[in-house]
Amino acid sequence: MNNTDPLALAQQRIAPLLTAALGRLGNQSLALGDAIQYSLQAPSKALRPALVWASCQALGMDPALGDRAAIAIECIHTYSLIHDDLPAMDDDDLRRGQPSCHIAHGEAHAILAGDALQALAFEALADPAWPLLAQGQLAASVTALARAAGGAGMVDGQSLDLLAENQSTGLDQLELMHSRKTGALIRACCEIGGLSANADPMQLDTLIQIGQTLGLAFQVQDDVLDVTASTEALGKPAGSDHDQNKSTFVTLLGVAESQALVDDMLSGVNSLASSLPNPAPILAIVARLSQRNA
Amino acid sequence: MNNTDPLALAQQRIAPLLTAALGRLGNQSLALGDAIQYSLQAPSKALRPALVWASCQALGMDPALGDRAAIAIECIHTYSLIHDDLPAMDDDDLRRGQPSCHIAHGEAHAILAGDALQALAFEALADPAWPLLAQGQLAASVTALARAAGGAGMVDGQSLDLLAENQSTGLDQLELMHSRKTGALIRACCEIGGLSANADPMQLDTLIQIGQTLGLAFQVQDDVLDVTASTEALGKPAGSDHDQNKSTFVTLLGVAESQALVDDMLSGVNSLASSLPNPAPILAIVARLSQRNA
Repeated sequence: MNNTDPLALAQQRIAPLLTAALGRLGNQSLALGDAIQYSLQAPSKALRPALVWASCQALGMDPALGDRAAIAIECIHTYSLIHDDLPAMDDDDLRRGQPSCHIAHGEAHAILAGDALQALAFEALADPAWPLLAQGQLAASVTALARAAGGAGMVDGQSLDLLAENQSTGLDQLELMHSRKTGALIRACCEIGGLSANADPMQLDTLIQIGQTLGLAFQVQDDVLDVTASTEALGKPAGSDHDQNKSTFVTLLGVAESQALVDDMLSGVNSLASSLPNPAPILAIVARLSQRNA
Repeated sequence: MNNTDPLALAQQRIAPLLTAALGRLGNQSLALGDAIQYSLQAPSKALRPALVWASCQALGMDPALGDRAAIAIECIHTYSLIHDDLPAMDDDDLRRGQPSCHIAHGEAHAILAGDALQALAFEALADPAWPLLAQGQLAASVTALARAAGGAGMVDGQSLDLLAENQSTGLDQLELMHSRKTGALIRACCEIGGLSANADPMQLDTLIQIGQTLGLAFQVQDDVLDVTASTEALGKPAGSDHDQNKSTFVTLLGVAESQALVDDMLSGVNSLASSLPNPAPILAIVARLSQRNA
């Protein structure tokens, strides 16, 4: 394969895994299955699965060890997009280049599709069809995913984000909100990827730091792209943060300083990765992110 | 303690466990914490925790082995009530004798509280603070909870229920819908309770049958109570099924035949329980259910 873009490779790798997970969903309601499939199979950057696999590979291990975690985290991410887009939340009509789930499948089934995807994530993580994780690894993985997704993570961040609308927010609060809303799940990719590949405690700590830094870098970059990229490239309305009168890294720091912060953080990730047995897959993701335009 | 009502005992036992789980939630958003606490600490029948503990005790084991499962299942149940009550779903303003979560805390935070409670359920189930389950038990418990809660269970049942509104439904479809909407989680109480207490495969199978039968009996009884009990006793609007023009066991079979079906199923549960080492706790729940008026 000539294509060495790590996100394109992750997109190719995650697609059949998600299809298989959908095939085992066990739904009787076709409407529910349709809504889930619509959102889970929409074009995704596949950043999170790519990070899971790169974290396994960084330890010199087979990325397949991270398959169940990659599916789980992509299910959580997709559910969060569906619920965030709901009229009572961010009320976004466009997502991943297509009408949002509640536009295409109705509000009730968008709520239910998100709910089912969260359950499917934990089912995938504990799937006995794959070789068993060691006892502590499975418990630690479920705990890490639950905390990253729930009231100490993503859901908390979405709440903080909603409460911050039409308020000016300081840099510390903005960073806290993002560290939860998007950072926690990105961090969990590296943590659960590492757990899946038998990371020792020092390696696990390094992977967690990598995930945490990447998560924030990714969000600052999102804020930059929200003012510099097109709606077509983003697959969601450009300028939507500004329309909602939200503080962003760009409104607080400006575009140039925000971009410099991204560059600093990405180079910090490269330094962290260099202490791991096989840093190349993480470096490749960093290089790819530094060039992204959407 | 003179009170031997197994549901009253379960209410007393689950309350501090839920308070402790809330204390570890880790939220920064007070609005999110408030919405979660509001719903999780509202008066609950505590049938599901009672079943988890009775399933442990039925095997002659300490009910404390089921604590994590009891918390997890009560979190899932509470989240499902919050989401089912949303305007886009059943649009119910009253729940557990108080305004529904979205009435008291707004629609966005009702969605988020439900989402966080689902994550908290899995966190509780994998909680390393309790003695570790054997490897296979933890994986099997997470899988059982995820399937009972998700697209092969409760969420699927809610979707089937929504699709059945204003349609006449046959008995088979009604039973399928209920076996998913409420039956799957009640069955999971007995299954995960059994897994938590080291059930052997035959005991586990018996517990699953007990849970499945009880789940259906409970739902048929709900349909009966919907036409025979008061709004005050129910803590939700009486006659709401009829208002929504839904088929129920009562509309299909009548009150008397529905009640006879409940009695048959409850006596079937008693027979099943008699093969277990210590059937008394399950018999006590059956006796309590046969007398319930709400």
